[in-house]
Amino acid sequence: MDNNTSRIRGRPKHDTSREPVQDVLLRTAARLFMEKGYEQVSLDHIARACNVSKPSIYYHFANKPELFKASVIALLNMVNTKTAHLLDEAGDLESGLLNVAETRLANPHPEFEMIMKEAANYLSPDQLELIRAAEQQIYHLLASRFKLAMEQGEFRTNDPMLLAQTFSTMLLLGNRHDTRQQFASPSDLGKQIVDLFLHGASFAN
Amino acid sequence: MDNNTSRIRGRPKHDTSREPVQDVLLRTAARLFMEKGYEQVSLDHIARACNVSKPSIYYHFANKPELFKASVIALLNMVNTKTAHLLDEAGDLESGLLNVAETRLANPHPEFEMIMKEAANYLSPDQLELIRAAEQQIYHLLASRFKLAMEQGEFRTNDPMLLAQTFSTMLLLGNRHDTRQQFASPSDLGKQIVDLFLHGASFAN
Repeated sequence: MDNNTSRIRGRPKHDTSREPVQDVLLRTAARLFMEKGYEQVSLDHIARACNVSKPSIYYHFANKPELFKASVIALLNMVNTKTAHLLDEAGDLESGLLNVAETRLANPHPEFEMIMKEAANYLSPDQLELIRAAEQQIYHLLASRFKLAMEQGEFRTNDPMLLAQTFSTMLLLGNRHDTRQQFASPSDLGKQIVDLFLHGASFAN
Repeated sequence: MDNNTSRIRGRPKHDTSREPVQDVLLRTAARLFMEKGYEQVSLDHIARACNVSKPSIYYHFANKPELFKASVIALLNMVNTKTAHLLDEAGDLESGLLNVAETRLANPHPEFEMIMKEAANYLSPDQLELIRAAEQQIYHLLASRFKLAMEQGEFRTNDPMLLAQTFSTMLLLGNRHDTRQQFASPSDLGKQIVDLFLHGASFAN
C-alpha cells in the first residue's frame, strides 16, 4: 500500500509519520468508535485525534459510515489474525484460550452488539453485512478449534459456534467494574473464565 | 403510595389510569433508558410515552438524573424480587436457573455496563452508588444460592460472586443477533446456557 503518497501537501504531518495516513485513520477511528459508540464520535473528532485535516479524511473515505465500516473491519481482521496467532503459539487449547482471554481482558471494550445496534441506524445493509462477515471469521476460527476438540474427545458434543459465542461473551466480564475489582490482573480473571468455560460451576458432568 | 392524588388537574389522564403516575413514569423511563441509553432519552420523550406533560414529570422528579436513578433502581428491585421468586418456585437450583435464563432471554436488553458508563457522566457519585447497591442485591441473591450449592457439594469451590456475575454475563448471549438466530426460542437458548454454566465445554472436570 502506498498511501503515504496521498498526504495533502502543505498540511501538517500526522504524529506517527512513518505509518500511512489511511492506517492511522483506520486505527484511530476504530479505537474511538469502540470507546464511545457511533454517534458520539465525529469526523472532526477523528481528524483532531490523528492530527490531520477533515479534508484528508474525505480524501480516503467518502463519509462517516464508510470510515466506520472500514475501521471496524480492519479492527476485526486484526483481532482475527491476533487470535489465530495466540491459539497457534500455545501448546494446547486451554493455554491458547488463556492467551486469548488475557489479551482481550487487558483491552476491555463495550459490548460490540450495542455499538452495532447504534451504527445500524446509519449504515447501509451492505456495509453492515461486510462488518458481520469480518466478525464471523473470529467465531469461525474459535469454533473450528472447538470442533477439533470434540472430534478428539476433549470437548463434549455441542454446537461449536455457540461455544465460540459463549466464550467471547464470558470475556465481557472484563467490562464489569465489580468483577475487575475482584482480580489483581486480567490474567487472574482470564484463568477463572477459562476454567469456568471448560469445566463449569458444577461437580457432575 | 397515594400518588394518584398528585395528578395535575386539567391535564389529560395517562393511559393506564389505575396505576399511579409515578409508577408509570418509573416503569416507562426504565424501559426507554434500557432500550436507548441515557443520552438518547429526553424528558419530553418520556412524557410523550407516558401521555403526561413535562411539568408532571418535574412534580415527581427533580431532574433527568434523579428520574434515571429512581427508575433504574425500581427496575433492579423488580428484577431482584422476580429472580428470587423464579429460584424459589423451582424444585432445584438447575430448574431455578433455567427459569431465570428463560425470563431474561425473553426480555433482552443492552449491556447494563454500557448504559451506566454513559450515565456516569451526568449522575452524582451518590446516585451512582445507590444504583450499584440495587444491582449488587441481585448478584448477592444468586451468589447465596451458589454458596449453598458449594456447601452441599453440588458445586466446585469457587468465588460465589464471580459465578453470579458469570451467569448474568452469559445471558448477554441473548443480545447477539447471530446467537438468537440459532435457537427457536429463548427457552432453547436458556437450556444451552445453563448446561454450559453448570458443566462447561470440556469432558474432564
